[in-house]
Amino acid sequence: MECRIVAVGTELILGLTTDTNSPYIARFLVENGISSQQHQVVPDDVDEIAHAILDGLQHSDALIITGGLGPTFDDVTREALSKAVKRELVFDPKLAEIIKERFPHDKPIPKFILRQAYLPEGAIPINPTLGTAPGIILEIEDKIIFALPGVPDEMKVMLKDKVIPFLRKRVREKAILIKVIKTCDISEASLQERIEDIIAKYENLNIKILVHLEEVHILLMLKGDIKAVEELISNVKDEIADRLGKLVYGFDEDTLEKVVGKLLRKHELKLAVAESCTGGLLSNRFTNIPGSSDYFWAGIIPYSTEVKRELIRVPSQVLLEHGAVSSFTAQAMADGARLIVGADIGLGITGIAGPTGGTPEKPVGLTFIALSTKTTRFCKRFIFTGSREVIKFKTSQQALNLLRLFLLERFEEGEVS
Amino acid sequence: MECRIVAVGTELILGLTTDTNSPYIARFLVENGISSQQHQVVPDDVDEIAHAILDGLQHSDALIITGGLGPTFDDVTREALSKAVKRELVFDPKLAEIIKERFPHDKPIPKFILRQAYLPEGAIPINPTLGTAPGIILEIEDKIIFALPGVPDEMKVMLKDKVIPFLRKRVREKAILIKVIKTCDISEASLQERIEDIIAKYENLNIKILVHLEEVHILLMLKGDIKAVEELISNVKDEIADRLGKLVYGFDEDTLEKVVGKLLRKHELKLAVAESCTGGLLSNRFTNIPGSSDYFWAGIIPYSTEVKRELIRVPSQVLLEHGAVSSFTAQAMADGARLIVGADIGLGITGIAGPTGGTPEKPVGLTFIALSTKTTRFCKRFIFTGSREVIKFKTSQQALNLLRLFLLERFEEGEVS
Repeated sequence: MECRIVAVGTELILGLTTDTNSPYIARFLVENGISSQQHQVVPDDVDEIAHAILDGLQHSDALIITGGLGPTFDDVTREALSKAVKRELVFDPKLAEIIKERFPHDKPIPKFILRQAYLPEGAIPINPTLGTAPGIILEIEDKIIFALPGVPDEMKVMLKDKVIPFLRKRVREKAILIKVIKTCDISEASLQERIEDIIAKYENLNIKILVHLEEVHILLMLKGDIKAVEELISNVKDEIADRLGKLVYGFDEDTLEKVVGKLLRKHELKLAVAESCTGGLLSNRFTNIPGSSDYFWAGIIPYSTEVKRELIRVPSQVLLEHGAVSSFTAQAMADGARLIVGADIGLGITGIAGPTGGTPEKPVGLTFIALSTKTTRFCKRFIFTGSREVIKFKTSQQALNLLRLFLLERFEEGEVS
Repeated sequence: MECRIVAVGTELILGLTTDTNSPYIARFLVENGISSQQHQVVPDDVDEIAHAILDGLQHSDALIITGGLGPTFDDVTREALSKAVKRELVFDPKLAEIIKERFPHDKPIPKFILRQAYLPEGAIPINPTLGTAPGIILEIEDKIIFALPGVPDEMKVMLKDKVIPFLRKRVREKAILIKVIKTCDISEASLQERIEDIIAKYENLNIKILVHLEEVHILLMLKGDIKAVEELISNVKDEIADRLGKLVYGFDEDTLEKVVGKLLRKHELKLAVAESCTGGLLSNRFTNIPGSSDYFWAGIIPYSTEVKRELIRVPSQVLLEHGAVSSFTAQAMADGARLIVGADIGLGITGIAGPTGGTPEKPVGLTFIALSTKTTRFCKRFIFTGSREVIKFKTSQQALNLLRLFLLERFEEGEVS
């Protein structure tokens, strides 16, 4: 089964909003053995949407459309659907009642809301459970069209509860298996050199090397009989992981913060972070993980020099002699973070995120990351390039990797020997 | 001039990565008076890419392709380009030298790197300045194709320095003007009711209402003679902004954190944030703004109860009687944050971000946001729905809006009266 994904929205075409729905849907489809060969983004225009629908029906078995189902005048996916498949829009009184129920009872119901109760003849509504916009299921001969609201949370519920169960009944295809191997501290070209004999050996396997900020992923993909595919992918994965050793930090849904979090939990360690130039990003990444309160004890963002001195207890002497961006300050921040909240490990991060504030001696992108425990203290120096947000993110990546390698060397390898 | 944007990458088709390049390019094009009517995402497959190129050349004047120009075997945009336009790939020795120069001198040069020195006959290379991948400019009769690396930072430099200047020479069209009005605290349907007479009055103006998490935007768009367009858009903008009053927090590139930051700077106020359930997100949003160290004094993430008690000085009694998620704790956190770092304003945020940890009395999504100054203390209670990250983001939005309204009422309206 081949599925095409169409995102509707002038704001997407203008680049005011990023389409995150299509990748979400694509991932969900793949997990359920369904391929998508193309994504399209079109504006809120009846003709453009209708054209994309007709084109999609011609080249694929199923079409998933997101956006343009809301109550306001500029939501025209219903009209486009009606035009494309030549079916009149019909008012559905039952659906209208459900939509009214969804609107907060303490406020008057805006009249536009009921535009959403019109559906192309023969369509099945998907009742809204989060917002007010219903989804639409429409079968046209042996093809099927799903139209879902553009608001991600509303779309996700309908995709999971209605679209996927509907599609799964029709999938008679083989499995698509994907394995992602995630690495740090190596460039894409060097990575390929390290594993090129393995790549050459499995030529029927689809292998791809993906570059991200301060990490490189290896994507293994294969379609086929589930058992055979699973075994082959698992073997290749093991072979590559063995070859690369600690350069591999994880697989698939792993992120550096998840992997570090697991190590901290396993060894019952409490972490405190004092992050200046990353400004809360590292703490935010840790706390995005459910259950991170087990090991993430506290984050402190001492953005002003006063706070570095008084709250984190960086000695005035250090700030005066070496400046706020120095290995000495980073180390004192790591120590301070650990001590003032009684954590086992402290991380201290200070740097110049830019775009201004750099000097010839201390350029934009210069960053110091320090670690502190009762028995260990060390600091690493980096120079990152990119925008302010990119420098912040790269810094948080290297801080996580520094902590990961420390935990592996101190707690995991020690156990083995 | 009509431009089509094509993003290449199997990882995009599989939904493992989100295509942020196309919206970035689209925004840049619009600012330069160039429309894009469609974006497409295709996998790393010579035939699929070649097909998208031919289709794009047929339906548009210019084509901007991103991705698939790297050194590894899976980067096949060069081959697809060669196939689509029937021009051989030719080795460019000068370009090869430039590419070699880009590689770190302390490491051996991986042999694959020089795949990037092959270009379709007659193409002009865009020299790499950040990574190692060159871009490609290829003119085919009166059409033009640009191929840029997929790494966002590398793409952005080439887009700005090479693609836009090249395209601008060919644009003889009228301006496209876009104005975005950004609001808080009102639903999309209610917003439309409030301004429907204005919308009806300007029917030649393209108006769209966009829903985001805890904010709604009004998009005004018009193509035409620059002077006439500017005046009309400016008038409509003023009329809507007057009607909506404080519901409007800003325009265009404004974000809640930028608007709040400007107010804090203007009134020379220092802010301290104690954020528990948002876990650093609010601090991170503030510190993404260049120069925020002028007013953002410190962030503290007291993730454990111990740290709430000992570092932020939430009284044990309060934690015992009302719990860590309560208006009393939020208020004590706001006070504590302000006092321990000597700030003018303290924000305290506590809640249950989920997905677990909720109870019937204190469900997931329950959040308290408190503000503290020398003379003012107040707290607001919210219940948000969504995933952990969505709840964190919505909380940060409401915290920013609460601070915005406080600053407006205390410092701006006071000034006028």
